[in-house]
Formats: sequence, C-alpha cells, structure tokens
Amino acid sequence: MVTKSLINQIQHLKQKKFRQKKGLFLAEGEKLVEELLEANFKYIKLFTTENSTIFPADFITKTDMQKLSHLKNASNYLGLFIKPQYVFDLNKISSSILALDGISDPGNLGTIIRTCDWYGINDIVCSKDTVDCFNSKVVQSSMGSISRVKCHYVDLASFIKTSKMNIYGTSLSGKSIYDLNLKKESIFVFGNESNGISSKVYEFIDNSITIPKNNNNLLIDSLNVASSVSIILGERFRQNK
Amino acid sequence: MVTKSLINQIQHLKQKKFRQKKGLFLAEGEKLVEELLEANFKYIKLFTTENSTIFPADFITKTDMQKLSHLKNASNYLGLFIKPQYVFDLNKISSSILALDGISDPGNLGTIIRTCDWYGINDIVCSKDTVDCFNSKVVQSSMGSISRVKCHYVDLASFIKTSKMNIYGTSLSGKSIYDLNLKKESIFVFGNESNGISSKVYEFIDNSITIPKNNNNLLIDSLNVASSVSIILGERFRQNK
Repeated sequence: MVTKSLINQIQHLKQKKFRQKKGLFLAEGEKLVEELLEANFKYIKLFTTENSTIFPADFITKTDMQKLSHLKNASNYLGLFIKPQYVFDLNKISSSILALDGISDPGNLGTIIRTCDWYGINDIVCSKDTVDCFNSKVVQSSMGSISRVKCHYVDLASFIKTSKMNIYGTSLSGKSIYDLNLKKESIFVFGNESNGISSKVYEFIDNSITIPKNNNNLLIDSLNVASSVSIILGERFRQNK
Repeated sequence: MVTKSLINQIQHLKQKKFRQKKGLFLAEGEKLVEELLEANFKYIKLFTTENSTIFPADFITKTDMQKLSHLKNASNYLGLFIKPQYVFDLNKISSSILALDGISDPGNLGTIIRTCDWYGINDIVCSKDTVDCFNSKVVQSSMGSISRVKCHYVDLASFIKTSKMNIYGTSLSGKSIYDLNLKKESIFVFGNESNGISSKVYEFIDNSITIPKNNNNLLIDSLNVASSVSIILGERFRQNK
C-alpha cells in the first residue's frame, strides 16, 4: 500500500542529504529496475502498475505511481534501492578511468556513465562537488549503466597527485587527441561545464589534450562535456582496436 | 517596464503553438544574446539586470527577470527574439548534413546543434515530430550555436527519398564507422531516443552504420543520441584532416 509516509520518504530522495541519510535511491522503468536487480543491487521495495510481473513488485495504481515518481510521467516500474558501498583501491585499477572535476548537470553525468559503460570503463572518480550519481536524473539518464559503472567521490586533487598513472586533462589549448597515443592506461580528467578543470587539479595534469574543431568557426569555443567524453573515448577505442 | 501582459506573453513561449503563432522565441544569458545579435537575429525586446550594458537592453530588477525567465535561476540577460525564416534548398547544400528523425529531448537537440557547429555542419534536417529548435531548453543547451546552425523541418521520408546524396543511417547492426569512408558528402540520419529511425525513413537509407562498443559488455545496447552524433562527426573530422 502507498502510504503518505512512503510518498514523503520517496519524494525526499530528490535531495542529496536525504539520499545520504537514508542510504537509498530511486530507479524508474522496467529496464532500469531489471538491470539493477541483475547487478545484485539490494532493494527495499519494488512497485509496478502491471498486472503480471517477473519481479517481486507490489501492484499499485497509476495514480499512486505518479505520487511516488520523480518523473513528469511515471513509468510502469519503480524501485526503492539501497545505495551500494563501493571499495575503491586505485592500485587495483588495471585499465583507463575517467575523472570528473565538478560536473554539475545530472543529465551530463548520466550520459557520461552510459558512454563509459559502452566503452568498457567501469570506474569514474569524481570530485566531491560533482553531482551525486544517485540523483534520480543521473540514474534515469544513465539508462541502466549506473548498475555497472561505479562512481567514487574523492578529494580529486589529492587523488590525481598520488596517482602513478598518466594524467590527461581536457582543455581548449592542448595537444590534439589525434596526435597522441591514447592506448596506454590513463586517467582522463574532464572539468566543470562552465569553468573547466579547477586550478588545484590542473597542476597535476601530465598532458593537456584537446578535440580539434573545424577551422571555419571561430565563435564556438567549447563542446558539451558529455560530447567531449564520447569523442575522446571513441578515439581511444579506435586506436585500441 | 515588465507588465503582466509581457510576463504572460513570455511564459506562453514555453509552448510550441505560441512560438509558432507569435513567431518569437526566448534566449537567456549574456553570451547567447550576444551571439544572436552578432548573427543578426532580430529582436523585439532585450532585458538586463546589469547597470551598464553594451546592448540596447532595458534595465529590470532581478525579481522581474525571474518572472520573465524560463530558467530556474534567471540569468542577467534575456532577449525576446524573432524566429528566422530559413530558405532551404537541398541543391545548394555543398557539404554533409545531419538528419534527425523524431529526436524528442530538447537537451539532446541543443547538444547536437552545438556539436554540428563545432564540426562545421551548418544545416540539420529534422522530421516534423522532432522537438522544435526554438524551444527554450534547446536554445539554452545549444550554447549560442543556434545562431549559426539552421534546423529545417521537413517531411523527412520524402526528403531522403529525393536526395541524391549518400545516406548513412545509424543502427545497432550496421557496418563499423571505422571501416567506412566518411569523407564523402553525405546525410547522416539519427533516430528517436527510444525507437531509432522510423521504418518509413529507414527504407531510403543507403548504408546502415554503427559505433562499435567494447566487447566485454553485452548488456548495454545503445548510446545517447547526442553522444552518437559526437562520435560519428568526430570520426568524420579525423578522416578528413
């Protein structure tokens, strides 16, 4: 049954402080709920508006589902999941990873998680001011990839400083990605949507890299950060194949 | 002065039918307004919360600006612009273009417009059910590129059918983009976020192309459409350089 207290609890999960306090997050849609269950995410409750279901989900009306949902148009499935606790040991990382310095847009982070999943990158290191990966908008825009790609929130400057891996930082005036060997195991750092990589992280970058643009246009000065991630990981994949 | 009638008029522009009826759209933020003016977009009114300004903008309070704004947090500049009327003649197109079949997310379209601008693609042909490029969210996420990249809304199936250019359509099972010559002038077709390219458009595709993924992950089955555009245009740029 959908009680007022449950509605409140789930609506509060829009706020990061409540997700942290309760250790919970919301996932909506059949595919997303299914992929989280397949990845052994623990849940508190699953709900559905469907009459028959393969999940152990409680049947509720569409009106009740809309009351619980964080979406404008609720889906047919909703799960209240327990946030996983990841153990992150840089020494155990054997392949390239992404580092995000202050990414603020949930849609961008979700899209980046999805692209990492596509290219087999399983770990993303995030500065503490990067948007929470269990924000509902991030979870939804990751399209299930949140079940496979782990975001680790750390003091990014210290992390980069102590890492022995090669550090690439994206900027507007670095070396072209097409003139670099992107095959070696590296950390690719991407900065905030408006301000780029912060100065305290930037000082530990080994190589500044850039995505070349068409020469005909002097007015455009940047790409969307999720687009930049896609182009760089795509080029890394091409070099490796 | 900010009258109630002006607030209503501008708030109504959130709806496509009012933008069409009035022939107007909204742009917010100094950089965006500046780039539209540089590109000779005509305006009805410009507003600012700044005391001194290089634009002919009316000074208004932050409270009034928030009443006009379509953003959660209003910017320092807002312009009420006239939608341009583009004349589109396929015969005059001399370089590759993008075709979008039913893209529904405004953030995706804005990001695609921005990526096209980066790579020097000036024309996008959109099916009539693709989200309106003068939707405020599209305008904002294009980050000024809406002033340089033109979206043309057409009957996409007829357009593709009559085009003499080579037509590439993205799918999950086409030829790898790395095994193709992307240099020749082509139309790149991208489909709806959930359903891909519609069957009536698909029948006129000359070559089905795909972005290869890392082999370790069988569960992920798609990339975000704006990410796909970025990877394909990036690879086209690399082949051309």
